Amino acid sequence: MALYAVIMAGGVGSRFWPRSRRANPKQFLDVLSTSSLIQKTYERVLPDIPAERIFVVTHEDYAQTTRQHLPDIPPENVLAEPIARNTAPCIALAAARLHALDPDAVMAVLPADHFVRQPERFLEVLRAATERALQPAEDGAGALVTIGIEPTHPETGYGYIQYDASDREDDEDAPRAFRVLAFAEKPDLSTAERFLDSGDFLWNSGMFIWRADAILGALQQYLPEIATAFAGVEDAFAAGDATSAVADAYAATPRISIDYGVMERAAADGRVYVVPGSFGWNDVGDWRAVYDLADKDAAGNAAEGTVITHGSSRTYARASDGRLLVLVGVRDLAVVDTGDAVLVCSLDLAQQVKDIVDYLGAHGMERHV
Amino acid sequence: MALYAVIMAGGVGSRFWPRSRRANPKQFLDVLSTSSLIQKTYERVLPDIPAERIFVVTHEDYAQTTRQHLPDIPPENVLAEPIARNTAPCIALAAARLHALDPDAVMAVLPADHFVRQPERFLEVLRAATERALQPAEDGAGALVTIGIEPTHPETGYGYIQYDASDREDDEDAPRAFRVLAFAEKPDLSTAERFLDSGDFLWNSGMFIWRADAILGALQQYLPEIATAFAGVEDAFAAGDATSAVADAYAATPRISIDYGVMERAAADGRVYVVPGSFGWNDVGDWRAVYDLADKDAAGNAAEGTVITHGSSRTYARASDGRLLVLVGVRDLAVVDTGDAVLVCSLDLAQQVKDIVDYLGAHGMERHV
Repeated sequence: MALYAVIMAGGVGSRFWPRSRRANPKQFLDVLSTSSLIQKTYERVLPDIPAERIFVVTHEDYAQTTRQHLPDIPPENVLAEPIARNTAPCIALAAARLHALDPDAVMAVLPADHFVRQPERFLEVLRAATERALQPAEDGAGALVTIGIEPTHPETGYGYIQYDASDREDDEDAPRAFRVLAFAEKPDLSTAERFLDSGDFLWNSGMFIWRADAILGALQQYLPEIATAFAGVEDAFAAGDATSAVADAYAATPRISIDYGVMERAAADGRVYVVPGSFGWNDVGDWRAVYDLADKDAAGNAAEGTVITHGSSRTYARASDGRLLVLVGVRDLAVVDTGDAVLVCSLDLAQQVKDIVDYLGAHGMERHV
Repeated sequence: MALYAVIMAGGVGSRFWPRSRRANPKQFLDVLSTSSLIQKTYERVLPDIPAERIFVVTHEDYAQTTRQHLPDIPPENVLAEPIARNTAPCIALAAARLHALDPDAVMAVLPADHFVRQPERFLEVLRAATERALQPAEDGAGALVTIGIEPTHPETGYGYIQYDASDREDDEDAPRAFRVLAFAEKPDLSTAERFLDSGDFLWNSGMFIWRADAILGALQQYLPEIATAFAGVEDAFAAGDATSAVADAYAATPRISIDYGVMERAAADGRVYVVPGSFGWNDVGDWRAVYDLADKDAAGNAAEGTVITHGSSRTYARASDGRLLVLVGVRDLAVVDTGDAVLVCSLDLAQQVKDIVDYLGAHGMERHV
């Protein structure tokens, strides 16, 4: 068998406004690095997966930029979605492509825009997940494997995975797979605290590892309308040109997530496994997350570009090229300056930046979106 | 006699950074108006003083810009200082110029960069001050008159004037002059509260009205080294070209303020008078003052340019042309965006912006100064 990476790069990441724009989504930003988030995702798997086996699924508007960011992967490995339909169709497309290429393909499905501080530990977890994905589930169906993050605090911004930790030892060092009992939506704080205390809940990272035929079988069983919509796509890939088959599939497919459409139901059938891991993961969901991850001075100020902080603490400030950003006597703020816009945002309310983007779109301010 | 205006426009107003720059000082900014502060100062006196009797003293670097802002005054009415030496030399220069022109000239010395909400009431006060300036002091010397602002709160950012209010009635309506007892420096809060409670302290507005010969006599008596330095200037003006005489005077003169050098001493000699007034005056000393004076929405947000405030209160935000400024969940902030810089400043610490400008100058960031 061979392991393939499928990088999912379909979103816009509007909570990263004003840096993220419709024409330049989050995965293309150099957040906390000199390379873009999608480049970091690519580099992270490269020790285990050669460039020609790394695929990206993205909106067709972003296909060209994706190829520019990842010049070493074959151009045809960038699979273009004509329309965003959430993760289940995206994964159906990639599975069809890989299964046409390699009936024994194993896919590692990875979001393009996450942060990993310890990439080597990530790869150890990925290897354990791959090993488990090669074995069938107990009932003989294909195993669906996910990566769960050991929680460090009662986070309310992530979904959770409950797993059967009954035979896990406290001093286990090597990552291995456990049976998933259930998926849980983003909890409220008291529920998150209960999850954390229980010891058998993990953060849902949105990373999946499975054989292409396993996920195709699961789609057939749990989301037959998607399987039907994508029925002709694999043959079209095998025949050489899938453009019109993909267009037809997206026109017919419903909009649904793989978590809700497949994973929750397959977990109830005992076919989902999770490999717990701790590798400095963060989904970098908003400017608050960037602040948390960034290097800071003694007063807790993080700066990119030409920034002067005076009497300030707990700030993230980013000046665009050639501009100077000065903070005087402020705290708990993100200040993000771009060519045409400036955001000044309470770190505690960074999630609301998404509302601003919605507002701009609804009020004729498209040029800033 | 004829009344002349002398607009003092020598400063930079660095607390207005990033809008004020060495090349574009505060008096040229359109703060709280569509015209510049110096234009507003000019327009304020125009009902009583024709353009040809309005003079400006400024640094020679700003002479050309001053003429552009005030195209209706004769170009030669802009008196250029070769070097900034505080207010006493500036006033000596203007007095020499006016006395050469008109031995009976009365001068109204007015800072270029203050704000007046009620210009008609200001003119009533100015007229009363002029009337007093035409009479000598009790000892026969020339009277020196200033305008004092009725304090509304225990402000620590202004100097104060104590006057003899013993014969003032509570219901006096028309402005008139009273004897000044003393000048006081910027007080601490408890002293300011005492001043406010006493009822006989006024804010020092830095506006003076006197005959040209009265201030020339006072300079001779209290600041003879300045009188000596400027001795040849009046004759040079009378002869037609004072450029080299002015250069010599500034090379020889000490740096001193008219308050410290003349007014405090003349007050002790019983020759200073003040006309109390209430005309919506503010020295617009920093961004906090701009916030206080600006029109605000129900949440206390003031905006200029394209600004969106979301969940924010008590903010002043100014976006430069073509740029969008978004505030999310913040309060008590000034945010000022210009072509090359952004300031994010606590309203309570707006005075410290001056320190930033000093820092920029000391750290090789001259292009932002």
